[in-house]
Amino acid sequence: MKKTSTRLADGRELMYFDARDDVVRDAPDLRPLEATTTASEIRYDPLLDEWVVIASHRQGRIYHPPANECPLCPSRDGRLSEIPAADYDVAVFENRFPSLTMAAAAATASTVLPGGSERLGADDLALTRPGVGRCEVVCFTSNHDASFADLTPQQVGLVLDAWTDRTAELSALPGVEQVFCFENRGAEIGVTLGHPHGQIYAYPFVTPRTERMLAAAAAHRRRTGRNLFDDLLAAERATQGTPGDRVVIAGEHWTAFVPHAAHWPYEVHLYPNRRVGDLLALNDAERAEFCTVYLDLLRRFDLLFDTPGNRTPYIAAWHQSPVGSAPGSGSELALHMELFTIRRTVGKLKFLAGSESGMDVFINDVSPETAAQRLREVSP
Amino acid sequence: MKKTSTRLADGRELMYFDARDDVVRDAPDLRPLEATTTASEIRYDPLLDEWVVIASHRQGRIYHPPANECPLCPSRDGRLSEIPAADYDVAVFENRFPSLTMAAAAATASTVLPGGSERLGADDLALTRPGVGRCEVVCFTSNHDASFADLTPQQVGLVLDAWTDRTAELSALPGVEQVFCFENRGAEIGVTLGHPHGQIYAYPFVTPRTERMLAAAAAHRRRTGRNLFDDLLAAERATQGTPGDRVVIAGEHWTAFVPHAAHWPYEVHLYPNRRVGDLLALNDAERAEFCTVYLDLLRRFDLLFDTPGNRTPYIAAWHQSPVGSAPGSGSELALHMELFTIRRTVGKLKFLAGSESGMDVFINDVSPETAAQRLREVSP
Repeated sequence: MKKTSTRLADGRELMYFDARDDVVRDAPDLRPLEATTTASEIRYDPLLDEWVVIASHRQGRIYHPPANECPLCPSRDGRLSEIPAADYDVAVFENRFPSLTMAAAAATASTVLPGGSERLGADDLALTRPGVGRCEVVCFTSNHDASFADLTPQQVGLVLDAWTDRTAELSALPGVEQVFCFENRGAEIGVTLGHPHGQIYAYPFVTPRTERMLAAAAAHRRRTGRNLFDDLLAAERATQGTPGDRVVIAGEHWTAFVPHAAHWPYEVHLYPNRRVGDLLALNDAERAEFCTVYLDLLRRFDLLFDTPGNRTPYIAAWHQSPVGSAPGSGSELALHMELFTIRRTVGKLKFLAGSESGMDVFINDVSPETAAQRLREVSP
Repeated sequence: MKKTSTRLADGRELMYFDARDDVVRDAPDLRPLEATTTASEIRYDPLLDEWVVIASHRQGRIYHPPANECPLCPSRDGRLSEIPAADYDVAVFENRFPSLTMAAAAATASTVLPGGSERLGADDLALTRPGVGRCEVVCFTSNHDASFADLTPQQVGLVLDAWTDRTAELSALPGVEQVFCFENRGAEIGVTLGHPHGQIYAYPFVTPRTERMLAAAAAHRRRTGRNLFDDLLAAERATQGTPGDRVVIAGEHWTAFVPHAAHWPYEVHLYPNRRVGDLLALNDAERAEFCTVYLDLLRRFDLLFDTPGNRTPYIAAWHQSPVGSAPGSGSELALHMELFTIRRTVGKLKFLAGSESGMDVFINDVSPETAAQRLREVSP
């Protein structure tokens, strides 16, 4: 794998990840692109004890461009895109409309609730901090019409290399506390660009979801002396061959299962059998098997519904330990991917309405055991 | 107000809330309706420390019926609906496809992870409980084409009476720990029936959202000796007249504001100025003013976007103290309504994709101060 780092016309970083070591990536960005300004900030919600990103500059971002104006395709035939090269394997660049950016660090360090600052005082009821962090776009392939599931295992390996590289580099940025690699796929969940791509968010805080998992793992450690993720994975693997089997793929190095309390109609958690904290800790055998197991899983997802082109909308989310986790806290978190679809049956989506959005209580209309059985049956 | 309770053909309870005391509600349900069975259960997610409702029997529920088959219209002209009367003011009935039901109490008390039960033992990693509770449908008016915002203050008062009555009665059911009155409005958020209606869920646990608020309020009490909601409301009211004004309506008894860390493009929290724990504790003056303030707010929401019929999709969620809250814990929670829309601009929705659904980090593209200003400007 060869990585080449360069800059786009407005100063944003662009990286190529190539399978061949002899590729030269020196095509300049010829667009007259002005640097964007961002007004991103993060605000503390004292009722829910969590940070919210306010990114009010993003309303003007590109929205469902026609295919011949795709900003993620290579630049060729006189059309200039976000990627100056005429072709690429995997390309990663800073989002032009980022929710979080290192440029925000230059903004005011902290402001408080206008008018209420005196009263709030040290209570920090209305904290505001600059939206420090970074948002990157990962182009999985130069083929506009492909899907992640269409990649070869070798191409997946290159994407995995890119995710791993970005996790390492973004973790080293000042203020970054968690790196999140994910893919949103499908217009049904709001994806505005059809080109196969994912995103990476480097957050300046540990996310609420991760905080909850760490708290649960710490409580489990206190109660049992064991790691929560180890016990969960063992318990789910033990369902194999029983009437309540929830395992979808049992590999040598990876296990994919529908969790006991799945929130989504079809939801699969994919764990390495050996617990590690993040992508950097995977060994060669684990990396190799991930490529085939993940492709198998994605292809099964695409076979779940009789939909145009067999493309199931999904969110794929890598859960990693926070940056610089202290032993015994963050290190409890097991690297894993959560893959789920909002589609519950042909033509019907799972909406997050009152119960989910109002009270965080998920209602799942598909039993996890049924979901697992279907996923085992639909053979790619 | 006159309340009449009766039964539908399959045994479900139906209640009429009438403005006039001389109305007789004795129309029988003439449909040959078989009792439904439910397989609802709640499962514990040990990673997120929360319960998920698995309601796999609901896939067959009615989906976008034509208007002339609306099950929420009165029964007339030979067409039989869920409401036998030829007209009604407000009607409440048990959902025929409930996510939670008292019938579930008869099911097995608890089962554990198949195959993993021995290993899990006392760790309770895969707890399953029957989906005890109740789901009710609240028909706001017999007028199919109306919207909540079209009601008169008197009609809103009747709906408020129904919400209050249901909160009291459902709180008394064995196993119920929280009552949640809400309205989902708009096909964009998955509403399958166009008739103006809301829902009430009686949960057999305190919801994750409420748990978090109670924990935050308890921490604030320890730190400051004060109530978190009191301090928040005072701080938000103090923004009035400043450049960072987030107050939308400042009434004598109620205040509506966009919170400092709003999660949604347009999100308003509506609090009584006098802190109370639930709907039952509101006094007459507060009840009366709620009707006009809430209508004002909904009409402003409908004016935000230039959409067909000016109908903005929204979720309206009543936050109430859990059932039988101990003083000093549950009683810290202040009754309030959270009203928000997933629409961020004309033709564009806010989707919960990777950051929100994967990590619980909300990205809001509309600044709360801008949202508040727009809501103040759009005068009904």
